[in-house]
Amino acid sequence: MAEALATREISLAQATTAVQAAAAKAVELGVTMDIAVVDSGGHLKAFARMDGAWLGSIDIAQRKARTAILFHFPTGAVGQLSQPGGPLYGIELSNGGLITFPGGLPIALADGTVIGGIGVSGSTVEDDHACAEAGAAAAVA
Amino acid sequence: MAEALATREISLAQATTAVQAAAAKAVELGVTMDIAVVDSGGHLKAFARMDGAWLGSIDIAQRKARTAILFHFPTGAVGQLSQPGGPLYGIELSNGGLITFPGGLPIALADGTVIGGIGVSGSTVEDDHACAEAGAAAAVA
Amino acid sequence: MAEALATREISLAQATTAVQAAAAKAVELGVTMDIAVVDSGGHLKAFARMDGAWLGSIDIAQRKARTAILFHFPTGAVGQLSQPGGPLYGIELSNGGLITFPGGLPIALADGTVIGGIGVSGSTVEDDHACAEAGAAAAVA
Amino acid sequence: MAEALATREISLAQATTAVQAAAAKAVELGVTMDIAVVDSGGHLKAFARMDGAWLGSIDIAQRKARTAILFHFPTGAVGQLSQPGGPLYGIELSNGGLITFPGGLPIALADGTVIGGIGVSGSTVEDDHACAEAGAAAAVA
Repeated sequence: MAEALATREISLAQATTAVQAAAAKAVELGVTMDIAVVDSGGHLKAFARMDGAWLGSIDIAQRKARTAILFHFPTGAVGQLSQPGGPLYGIELSNGGLITFPGGLPIALADGTVIGGIGVSGSTVEDDHACAEAGAAAAVA
Repeated sequence: MAEALATREISLAQATTAVQAAAAKAVELGVTMDIAVVDSGGHLKAFARMDGAWLGSIDIAQRKARTAILFHFPTGAVGQLSQPGGPLYGIELSNGGLITFPGGLPIALADGTVIGGIGVSGSTVEDDHACAEAGAAAAVA
Repeated sequence: MAEALATREISLAQATTAVQAAAAKAVELGVTMDIAVVDSGGHLKAFARMDGAWLGSIDIAQRKARTAILFHFPTGAVGQLSQPGGPLYGIELSNGGLITFPGGLPIALADGTVIGGIGVSGSTVEDDHACAEAGAAAAVA
Repeated sequence: MAEALATREISLAQATTAVQAAAAKAVELGVTMDIAVVDSGGHLKAFARMDGAWLGSIDIAQRKARTAILFHFPTGAVGQLSQPGGPLYGIELSNGGLITFPGGLPIALADGTVIGGIGVSGSTVEDDHACAEAGAAAAVA
């Protein structure tokens, strides 16, 4: 008999911790963010839009989180390969639309198991990435 | 000089309170829910999927919240008018897809000002509605 | 520290077994089918279109499998609740389009853990359902 | 009387052989792949996602197979013409979204008749292409 695969999945408690840590980082940076956390299948688990954060970032934060989980890569790393002349040029048209600039990260356990993804949008891509990093780290701390 | 309109908008603190109150009601009922809160423009403000809640309810909870804000009506009230032969038959095809069964409610201040909407999905429509009611009430308590 | 959730996922070996068992049932019934198997997140794991099977069933088989996993219900059970006047009237507009007639089933381990879903389309809904049942059973036999 | 055109079409047996040969090549390369085979009309015939392969490659593998059949070209050859300044710049926006980097190939009989297409995604474009080549060759061997 074929065996089912054993996997791990982000819990709501972990996802909420990630959102709160990303928001705390945003406060520290003096910016307002949209923050999305998805499970290992790319499905939304938790979301928060800070007061004053861009409406356009609701969608971008979710696409960043989803892009990160679809390939187990930081979104910015995908973007480096998808430029004109690059090996993955045009990949952003797949999967209903990817976001390939920084701000999306896989969330992984210490043993490397990817349990979810986080996407942050609302400021510069550097700020977005810093907040995503804070959130991803806190989820599994 | 023409005056801009004064509006009121749900805050993230209120939206988080709504999500937590709806989740607490779900725990009381022994069910797991997807819970979405949108602002007065129908844009996502906060979301949580309880551990074990249906994946299909991620979309439905958001559509319920959005449907409630689009017409300032409980979703179930829209559904009573959209049955075959009813005055709004087929309205669910508008606006990219509405959900017109119970579980979505406007969130309003005591003076009647609608500041957002909540949508809950994950159990019977009666349970969904009860959790939405708990969330909407808590947001402005 | 919050814990990740432990889950189980259908393997390709199990999915292939499901497809083959559904196809064998179709041969027994003298029909040709489109057969899709998705994982517990609703993502395609295996697919086969038997020679001569309808092109229109490629999409329907996949939507049936996805509908079954989104709510952990047989698609036909969803359809009984989504008729005019029913509690879930119009639910098929959610999640990018559901199929709510028979032919889609969750695939579950003996302990009830849902590890995937199967959708079959290509004949009557009775035939579709019978083939889905054969596939779902074989996957975990 | 006008004559209908004689065509040849990939069979499920051939498509299954292609999927298995592509997967065997992936095992040889030490990677995990999503593998899609479409018929000469671009419609899905067979699909397999190896355990551990990227979720984002489900869509990409299918788009590669479809892109290859839409123009009877390897996807990488289309990509060389679609760069900024190239004669087909932007072609990836057509047909609901093409993938124009390597990993998609037409499947042709010895006399040149194209009977289907294969798309592979899950690793570098070089690995993807190598697996697609193995699959396309095996289908008609």
